[in-house]
Amino acid sequence: MSLTHTEQQFLAAQRHGRLATIGLAGGPQVKPVGFTYNTELGTIDIAGHFMASSTKYRNVRANPKVAFVVDDVPFEAIDGVRFLEIRGLAETVTGPVPPDSDLSGDLIRIHPRRVLAYNIDPDRPGLLTRNIQS
Amino acid sequence: MSLTHTEQQFLAAQRHGRLATIGLAGGPQVKPVGFTYNTELGTIDIAGHFMASSTKYRNVRANPKVAFVVDDVPFEAIDGVRFLEIRGLAETVTGPVPPDSDLSGDLIRIHPRRVLAYNIDPDRPGLLTRNIQS
Repeated sequence: MSLTHTEQQFLAAQRHGRLATIGLAGGPQVKPVGFTYNTELGTIDIAGHFMASSTKYRNVRANPKVAFVVDDVPFEAIDGVRFLEIRGLAETVTGPVPPDSDLSGDLIRIHPRRVLAYNIDPDRPGLLTRNIQS
Repeated sequence: MSLTHTEQQFLAAQRHGRLATIGLAGGPQVKPVGFTYNTELGTIDIAGHFMASSTKYRNVRANPKVAFVVDDVPFEAIDGVRFLEIRGLAETVTGPVPPDSDLSGDLIRIHPRRVLAYNIDPDRPGLLTRNIQS
């Protein structure tokens, strides 16, 4: 269990996050992605169309360091932004093709190592950060 | 003029993008940010509260390679995603404090070097990429 119940609830209400990887030339790249929180493993699992041939998949295989952010603006003001940033190490996983889906079975799986939560927990507003041991 | 009129129109309709930088330990970091397209310089200008003391500002000063993405899902289906990713070199700029604003005068200014546009131009659907010479 790498994320708190409140953080998992926040993720479950969002459709997309943005995944940052390191390109082969050393610079960052960032893309919108669909995702699920894997409650069994405590990982962020990212599927997609043609995932195994994507640049982000290739990037992760060459350099596993990634960052992933989910955010929203619940009150339509820039001050109201909330975000959950998860930094960690990603692996590529080849799984079975999911039934009733046009996604491939290939995943990018993020193992969280550091979590930065901003205004995610109403009882603890502001920025909270923590490391997660493997 | 680094971005097309269609790309500028897409950016003007969005409030937030996500900025990926490289942290001091070499891994990527990614945050939601407000932004403007600077039509005079052809740059993406990112302001913020306490910008000069932010980690992203520090990151850019140590390593100018960044990626910035703006996306939306106009048809509420994952297939309908559109994005504009801008990779480039960022500098930090100290400007005058803007009037009638609580933002600081400090900016991260991105000089685009590569643009990846996905479904941004209705006349040219799919992924279009190009390099931009400095």
